[in-house]
Amino acid sequence: MSNSFFQKDIVSVRDFDKQKFETVFQATDKIIGMNQNERREIVRGKTLGYLFFEPSTRTRLSFEAAMASIGGTSLGIADASSSSAKKGESLADTVKIMSLYSDVLVLRHQLDGSSRFAAEISEKPLINAGSGTEEHPTQAILDLYTIRKEKKKIDGLKVGIVGDLKYGRTVYSLLYALSNYNVDVKLISPPSLKIRADSTYEIRKKLQYTETSDLEENLDDLDVIYVTRIQKERFADIEEYVKVRGSYKIGPELVNKIKDDAIIMHPLPRLDEISPEIDSTKQAKYFKQAQYGKDTRAALLALILNENGI
Amino acid sequence: MSNSFFQKDIVSVRDFDKQKFETVFQATDKIIGMNQNERREIVRGKTLGYLFFEPSTRTRLSFEAAMASIGGTSLGIADASSSSAKKGESLADTVKIMSLYSDVLVLRHQLDGSSRFAAEISEKPLINAGSGTEEHPTQAILDLYTIRKEKKKIDGLKVGIVGDLKYGRTVYSLLYALSNYNVDVKLISPPSLKIRADSTYEIRKKLQYTETSDLEENLDDLDVIYVTRIQKERFADIEEYVKVRGSYKIGPELVNKIKDDAIIMHPLPRLDEISPEIDSTKQAKYFKQAQYGKDTRAALLALILNENGI
Amino acid sequence: MSNSFFQKDIVSVRDFDKQKFETVFQATDKIIGMNQNERREIVRGKTLGYLFFEPSTRTRLSFEAAMASIGGTSLGIADASSSSAKKGESLADTVKIMSLYSDVLVLRHQLDGSSRFAAEISEKPLINAGSGTEEHPTQAILDLYTIRKEKKKIDGLKVGIVGDLKYGRTVYSLLYALSNYNVDVKLISPPSLKIRADSTYEIRKKLQYTETSDLEENLDDLDVIYVTRIQKERFADIEEYVKVRGSYKIGPELVNKIKDDAIIMHPLPRLDEISPEIDSTKQAKYFKQAQYGKDTRAALLALILNENGI
Repeated sequence: MSNSFFQKDIVSVRDFDKQKFETVFQATDKIIGMNQNERREIVRGKTLGYLFFEPSTRTRLSFEAAMASIGGTSLGIADASSSSAKKGESLADTVKIMSLYSDVLVLRHQLDGSSRFAAEISEKPLINAGSGTEEHPTQAILDLYTIRKEKKKIDGLKVGIVGDLKYGRTVYSLLYALSNYNVDVKLISPPSLKIRADSTYEIRKKLQYTETSDLEENLDDLDVIYVTRIQKERFADIEEYVKVRGSYKIGPELVNKIKDDAIIMHPLPRLDEISPEIDSTKQAKYFKQAQYGKDTRAALLALILNENGI
Repeated sequence: MSNSFFQKDIVSVRDFDKQKFETVFQATDKIIGMNQNERREIVRGKTLGYLFFEPSTRTRLSFEAAMASIGGTSLGIADASSSSAKKGESLADTVKIMSLYSDVLVLRHQLDGSSRFAAEISEKPLINAGSGTEEHPTQAILDLYTIRKEKKKIDGLKVGIVGDLKYGRTVYSLLYALSNYNVDVKLISPPSLKIRADSTYEIRKKLQYTETSDLEENLDDLDVIYVTRIQKERFADIEEYVKVRGSYKIGPELVNKIKDDAIIMHPLPRLDEISPEIDSTKQAKYFKQAQYGKDTRAALLALILNENGI
Repeated sequence: MSNSFFQKDIVSVRDFDKQKFETVFQATDKIIGMNQNERREIVRGKTLGYLFFEPSTRTRLSFEAAMASIGGTSLGIADASSSSAKKGESLADTVKIMSLYSDVLVLRHQLDGSSRFAAEISEKPLINAGSGTEEHPTQAILDLYTIRKEKKKIDGLKVGIVGDLKYGRTVYSLLYALSNYNVDVKLISPPSLKIRADSTYEIRKKLQYTETSDLEENLDDLDVIYVTRIQKERFADIEEYVKVRGSYKIGPELVNKIKDDAIIMHPLPRLDEISPEIDSTKQAKYFKQAQYGKDTRAALLALILNENGI
């Protein structure tokens, strides 16, 4: 019997339930436990094709590294919007042809719905590597995996999500993912960067969360502190930005207030939301998170490309 | 005994005869019939080096995908004319060094003759991926293969070539290729985009063709309808362009006039010469053609790199 | 017992002694002697991550080709300073994450000390592919290997280094490398492009060299003539540049004055410091040198990634 991901698209985190997450997590555990001689055979001879209409070096390299770590090859267009391949060609044609050149397609696109549309066109399974304002399913998977791996569980945890919650698809995907678990979520942000009510309608049906703008007061009982970047461009007033940035920064004083076994996460790249001195604390897990990003993507690729899974 | 392509350059479609085409076609059939475990061993450990002085994402990716599908690796310069590697370095030096880094070289260059020149410099066999105004031998190979595969033969067919026949090396390479076969060719284009007489002197010795500007009247007995892009830049007068574009567009009405077992081809990317509604007709073969592009290139690479062929 | 390079950084040519050079040379000889079936297994399944903050297509492709020739994969950022990955991210974070995605890191950076700093951050061994004004250790290795291979020895040779000795890290790295041997060095340059005294303080302790500005007078007893590019940008006065360029050019007349068994080297790319007519002389070794660049880098990668060496 085929594994349930075989030849399937990964379009939205909303298509996942606990069982599906667990399948990817177990495949990831297995891959991490393998030696390189086994790992390099998993998808040997298979090709990942990527199409990034919105350039993202980090996400692209994570996929390329994942594919390489299990023996596969990557090729594609790192900046499809400016590529000569574009020249007025439709998204549909670009997707179609890229899918003829590869065994699995990875798409990043600025528009909501682009990924669902492309998956219908593609001759091969398609993975959404970020689309529109809400969807980044592989980021959600790696976030959950990091929590599960480092905290040994997800249910029962208190999770704080800090920073710019209004923009950034990472936060919405994570909330959708967390809504499958029994977690207590605190959203901590400047008032102007609060989560968008219209985008959380579905989430609220399944997930309880509270909102606050005070970081320091809300740190002490969190098990997971998920920090996001606050981008200057979001502020009309630079002074407002400077003030906000200061109060949502994790520095040595704040780390003293968090639980001993809490974990600090960040989707990276960071600017100065977390000071480098924190890197050496036992709570800092954001680099592990980046590494798990590679591993979970490798697991997903293996499941999609191999009938018998890993 | 070595296969006849072993360690040989592919510079011009004029160097091909029926026998050579047939060798590549049979190798392509073989590769398509192989399972992945066999295919990925064909050129494992070998490296393709590409030099695109005229960027062409589509052609480059087709070669990369071909090389990956038979187990090889690709590297090179996607935009050699703007590359830092250029810095006033001669074409000869760039070719020479790239050929020291790889087992086979793939060159795209805007100048006629560039490929022949580079092949003499290169330490390794060189494949012309498009040069000057007339030569694109691997495109001609994939075009012929598509006809042979989808129509089961080439001799005896009526082939219409539609659109901009003046510019675009694809058309000239295809005509040279077809001149090896017993085909009846109709060239259908706006008067201002007729084929260049000076470039078809050699072709006319071997190939009969008729010229017309009326698409609709000439569709009904064609076996192959090869559509090319009509580019706005070719027209001084935008109104002339709009008029011309309209009359050389394959839409649902025109498809009703073509033979049931005709095939529609296009080198892609397309703009609106073929409307997307045509994609689902049984005559539409342009996406298959793109896929055969990968397969024929893989076959060619295999023949060039392996003494015993495939 | 592990080979002495296993999992070690290659940061500076100053960390090398005769013994270490010899280890790389012997590994290179071995790799060159292997057939492809053996070679492609050496680092199969392993990944090289590159970060070029200063773009260098040539050096990057040499590393990619080296990695591919021994069965490995490369990925990374070809222009890290303009990459979206940059976006204000620190060098430390970029290096850290790239090192989580790969088994060995290759860094090119404009700042002195960048490589030492990055090696401390990196989770994986790091190879300096050029940093600041003085360090380019893999270039020095390939230069020495070329001399040893083509002259059968290094000790006892008379080595002339010609051209722009003031700028260009290649020259400094080569001098450091040569200071481990018993060689007689002549530095031949326009007065305005003489070697920097402050950068050769350490070198002078171990290496004797003489300086001159007359190329023609000093050619006849050299065993190695190492030519470097003279860049226009270095001159305030264009006439001064034209004059200088002319007098440091190796053309047919000058070649007649060199020893029959001398070798001419150049780090490439060249502009017109060596005229193309020289390429076919038996003394011209700069293309072999480029090829040895790939081979020595492959050897180094093999030593770093395989506990038992090659």
